[in-house]
Amino acid sequence: MGSIRSENAFLHLINAHFPNTHSHMLHGRGDDCAIIRCPKAMCVSSDLFLEDVHFRSHYFTAADIGYKALAVNLSDIASSGAKPLGFSLGLMVVDGKEDAYWDTLFEGMAALAREHDVALTGGDLSQADKIGLSVTVWGGLPAPDALFLTRGVCTAGDAIFTVGTVGLARTGLLSLEALGQEACAQYPEAVRAHLHPTPRIQAGQAIARFAATLPAEKQQTIGLMDMSDGLARDLPRLLGTDSDEHPPALTAELTVTEDAIHPETKAYASANNRSPLEEYILGGEDYALLGTCPPSCLPHLQHLLPNLRCIGHVCKTSVSGSVAPGTFTVNGRPWQRSGFDHFSA
Amino acid sequence: MGSIRSENAFLHLINAHFPNTHSHMLHGRGDDCAIIRCPKAMCVSSDLFLEDVHFRSHYFTAADIGYKALAVNLSDIASSGAKPLGFSLGLMVVDGKEDAYWDTLFEGMAALAREHDVALTGGDLSQADKIGLSVTVWGGLPAPDALFLTRGVCTAGDAIFTVGTVGLARTGLLSLEALGQEACAQYPEAVRAHLHPTPRIQAGQAIARFAATLPAEKQQTIGLMDMSDGLARDLPRLLGTDSDEHPPALTAELTVTEDAIHPETKAYASANNRSPLEEYILGGEDYALLGTCPPSCLPHLQHLLPNLRCIGHVCKTSVSGSVAPGTFTVNGRPWQRSGFDHFSA
Repeated sequence: MGSIRSENAFLHLINAHFPNTHSHMLHGRGDDCAIIRCPKAMCVSSDLFLEDVHFRSHYFTAADIGYKALAVNLSDIASSGAKPLGFSLGLMVVDGKEDAYWDTLFEGMAALAREHDVALTGGDLSQADKIGLSVTVWGGLPAPDALFLTRGVCTAGDAIFTVGTVGLARTGLLSLEALGQEACAQYPEAVRAHLHPTPRIQAGQAIARFAATLPAEKQQTIGLMDMSDGLARDLPRLLGTDSDEHPPALTAELTVTEDAIHPETKAYASANNRSPLEEYILGGEDYALLGTCPPSCLPHLQHLLPNLRCIGHVCKTSVSGSVAPGTFTVNGRPWQRSGFDHFSA
Repeated sequence: MGSIRSENAFLHLINAHFPNTHSHMLHGRGDDCAIIRCPKAMCVSSDLFLEDVHFRSHYFTAADIGYKALAVNLSDIASSGAKPLGFSLGLMVVDGKEDAYWDTLFEGMAALAREHDVALTGGDLSQADKIGLSVTVWGGLPAPDALFLTRGVCTAGDAIFTVGTVGLARTGLLSLEALGQEACAQYPEAVRAHLHPTPRIQAGQAIARFAATLPAEKQQTIGLMDMSDGLARDLPRLLGTDSDEHPPALTAELTVTEDAIHPETKAYASANNRSPLEEYILGGEDYALLGTCPPSCLPHLQHLLPNLRCIGHVCKTSVSGSVAPGTFTVNGRPWQRSGFDHFSA
């Protein structure tokens, strides 16, 4: 097997994995533009997935790379409560990989696209020094009367909930960085959480459908986002207090119980002299959903989604005298450390 | 002035250049997804714009980079005859640039976005080793009864036309690569064609509106694309004969007159012992429109677009005995050389 020599060979490979006809596509790939059939409103999001920034080639297989580049994008659609429809792929290709590598990468992505019936409408290919994938994805409402969910709609007293495991992907990342492939044996679920996160598409849609059953004036009271940067950085975004221009009016009191923290996160923390609670709060790349709802909605949502977990509540900054603006409490103590910023040292 | 240290600082800068409210956006940037208001059908396209693949930082200013990354994407919308509505930006940021650099890059892009009233709906930011921009753009029909234009709809006898200068951007690229900034004095229009190509949005829409005035059975007879890879590589795509699986049924006979070739391309060819005609045919990155239409439509289109130029006609492969499958003739002689392939040596 030789390396793929031409753009046409890549396009053939893409066509072999991604069907070029779909009910969402009126005109498929291969022209300057694809033409897509659209609902009245769509949600749209983009995420970069770059070698040595978002993934390492020495412990990500080609299939993992293809899968995760799409998964992190689908997770944004999930957090809007939407049904994904289509996506576009900008692929940065490096020299020297066998055909089988790209074949596997596309298959990792295509399997996830099939699972959610999402059409690849096109994109671009370019040589580059490192592998990179730029995905733009869009989706529509899961039901005609449903609403797109957003952040920043909560008020004091609202419950804060998660869907999915929190902190586990960070355990996977740290153990893979420290131990390489050996981490797979020691922290298998954590490694999988980092390499192969599940976009919570069904859960997001279930929450959006539930919101549509509420009286009109209550429909905009459920907030949702996905956790890509860890609870510490994402919680202020959920509360709508991440702007640094105004002192925030809202904060949160979190109650994190032992059983919320995955055993592998506890084992890793114990082996590395870290606090399991801090690992949970710092987190990052779990792509769990993080939401707020009026307390009266919580039992309904927990019935719909048995893995939905209440982790605290929203409160006014002034009520919680011990909490400085921009911070929140965890089990009664103010939280101080901030999560991962791509642009901070 | 320091370098931009945080993701938030970048987001502030983006907000300063790109309005976050627009009739196309029901919910703007700053959430997991933007929510966009959609027509029944949209055309969508993506293009990567990467340092040292698509541009050189030593002769592209920051403003040129921001401008061209969006312009090449808008050109795809132009070639569908559509009106651009929104776009998404994945930005790969390098260390060590001043704030002013990014400010200028965003302003170069924002000025073009304002000119065409296109909304930036969001995107992603990441550090990288080289600057890169990944843009996904979408658009709708310019009039309720208009049609999206595509490639590959021509038949033998159709006229082949261009809108915009062909071959000039290649002169700009070659002279900039050979001479650096000195090229600006010697080949000013060629340099501008490479650094600052014009997406032919109005021309594309005019052609789409004209197609809508034709009888129903004639509306699908006008083909259009934009020339990014040069006439030699793009012409077979326009004819729908770029697939290498079947011997093509159609080919083209081009007639390129002296006055079709820009004086700077002639001057560059003369100074470098090259054929001006070959420079014209090889071309690349002109982002001129390339189209086909029934001969009866040509006078109407030329009336609408005075810079529309007929450069030949489509013919059956078998009719033109001297032309091998996959080739075409230029001024009576078979053309052999193929254009630029990112993936060929």
